Amino acid sequence: MNLPQGGYDILLERGLLARAGTLLGLDRPGRRTLIVTDDGVPAQYAAALAAQCAAPQLVCVAQGEGSKSFATLQRLLAAMLQSGFGRADAAVAVGGGVVGDLTGFAAACYMRGIPFYNLPTTSLAQIDSSIGGKTAINFEGVKNVVGAFYQPARVLVDPDLLATLPPRQLAAGFAEAIKAGVLADEALLALFERGQPEAHLEEILLRSLTFKKNIVEQDERESGLRRILNFGHTIGHGIESACGLGGLLHGECVGLGMLPMCTDPALRARLTAILELNHLPTRVHFDPDAVYAAACHDKKGGAGKTAVIEVAAVGRPQITTIDNSALRARIEREAREGIGA
Amino acid sequence: MNLPQGGYDILLERGLLARAGTLLGLDRPGRRTLIVTDDGVPAQYAAALAAQCAAPQLVCVAQGEGSKSFATLQRLLAAMLQSGFGRADAAVAVGGGVVGDLTGFAAACYMRGIPFYNLPTTSLAQIDSSIGGKTAINFEGVKNVVGAFYQPARVLVDPDLLATLPPRQLAAGFAEAIKAGVLADEALLALFERGQPEAHLEEILLRSLTFKKNIVEQDERESGLRRILNFGHTIGHGIESACGLGGLLHGECVGLGMLPMCTDPALRARLTAILELNHLPTRVHFDPDAVYAAACHDKKGGAGKTAVIEVAAVGRPQITTIDNSALRARIEREAREGIGA
Repeated sequence: MNLPQGGYDILLERGLLARAGTLLGLDRPGRRTLIVTDDGVPAQYAAALAAQCAAPQLVCVAQGEGSKSFATLQRLLAAMLQSGFGRADAAVAVGGGVVGDLTGFAAACYMRGIPFYNLPTTSLAQIDSSIGGKTAINFEGVKNVVGAFYQPARVLVDPDLLATLPPRQLAAGFAEAIKAGVLADEALLALFERGQPEAHLEEILLRSLTFKKNIVEQDERESGLRRILNFGHTIGHGIESACGLGGLLHGECVGLGMLPMCTDPALRARLTAILELNHLPTRVHFDPDAVYAAACHDKKGGAGKTAVIEVAAVGRPQITTIDNSALRARIEREAREGIGA
Repeated sequence: MNLPQGGYDILLERGLLARAGTLLGLDRPGRRTLIVTDDGVPAQYAAALAAQCAAPQLVCVAQGEGSKSFATLQRLLAAMLQSGFGRADAAVAVGGGVVGDLTGFAAACYMRGIPFYNLPTTSLAQIDSSIGGKTAINFEGVKNVVGAFYQPARVLVDPDLLATLPPRQLAAGFAEAIKAGVLADEALLALFERGQPEAHLEEILLRSLTFKKNIVEQDERESGLRRILNFGHTIGHGIESACGLGGLLHGECVGLGMLPMCTDPALRARLTAILELNHLPTRVHFDPDAVYAAACHDKKGGAGKTAVIEVAAVGRPQITTIDNSALRARIEREAREGIGA
């Protein structure tokens, strides 16, 4: 990743975990390392990293969005403070998007920023969320509303770690790769038309990460181009909020959210088939009021506009600002038909 | 302030408050403005700004370091969230260093960063803390340990606002200008040898801000050169922590903390005379154990090293890393003599 303030390496290779201590400089005598994982991640991953660190300190948080909170953030900060962490010490995320967002924000805030490393263990994080520097916690029921743009100092993507991931979670993460395909990479999208994405895992990871790297390099702070990465996320976030907590996974919601944003019926039909082939839902019943309110943070159904990302053909996304009333009408229409109908 | 990611203007002029709404674009229809002040700042300043804003929201926090807390931070974030603040809305600090540090950090975190403006009302903030982008709150008794490097989008320094500042606070702020003089500007230091700094207020502000701007431009993230700004702050912070809460003001502690770091006795004598002439304390009795522990975050009096800024002659600061045992010995010696003896 090449950025004005310096940039960093993203390594993609099987077996990286076994060499992570050296690759991240965590074996340097006296260097302290906060390792954050959650109780849904196989414990052996964080333990394997800790065994390679000079001064490891392990914190295991609860799995799920609930850990992206001020309470958990303070727990991480207190752990570093009590162990006397300085600016040259480090924090490492060993987990999925939740662990990465939380740990990255803690690293961004502690002493105004210490080195942060990411060792993603889910397909979603390996494909998308581990690079790009978006960190955040949730606050008062609003997702990711408190955070920082804070880039990792290095990211290690070890595809072997996905071997332990439950099939449904694996599939959900692939939705972000399908998104990258629709936005910019016909060859990547075509890979998913063959089914069995596991067989093309490294190519999928490489293509997805390369795509995202290119976007972030051009617009780190999401002032323009980077917003296309929100394709599928407007209605997707709405569905996730309204049907969340035991309902649908983030990636599943992104998959569903992309469909209404395909303005060409043929593309929509093609994407529906791809989602089905890759074990992702294409049909969902939801309350349009709740989804609308969460999609545009508007509880009154009133004025205002929302930016949506629409795609007319593979590789041709467009950022369109539509009236909230138009967004509402679209959500109501989709709710009647259950999206995938 | 010229920085790689863009930079910003620092305006210095009497009467700026009356034009702040336009100067900061806060009068643009629909733009929301969070105005943060504290109950030690004359209420008319925040009110005057609010009257110029299209959609102002005023939050008044309690005066003092206690407001640099997670609780107050969350209060500001909740205020913005409940009013539907977006990325183009703004937060403005109307106050001293505490209000600036707190508001800047809230602006840095909300939606990963919204525009932050600073309208400093104390000599300390106008001379030093309102520029440079250091924002922070305190955590578990440690000052500024959680925060961000987050630059303001514009800073308005209106010397007229100092007219209401109590004389002791005014004098304490001048300690940071005296620091700038010792570090780099003989003419600035000489101004303070004439007494009555109020008579040279604009020149003091201009020279102090110019000095700090130059340092920050060269080392925004304090990886090297910027550390010289900590001259007087190592032992000064220690004294502030140990004698704080109703004891000495921050600027007074910085003044005291500079004296032991003058390695030339003639310079120390000159600085002592300057502090006395400008109504700043030069003598203090303190517990060396408490000051040592706070100065280097070391409660065990053991190993480790601390970087100190020493000055042998005006304009010739040096960053020296000394053993904590040497720092402790120096603090004990100063405690016996009450520093200024």
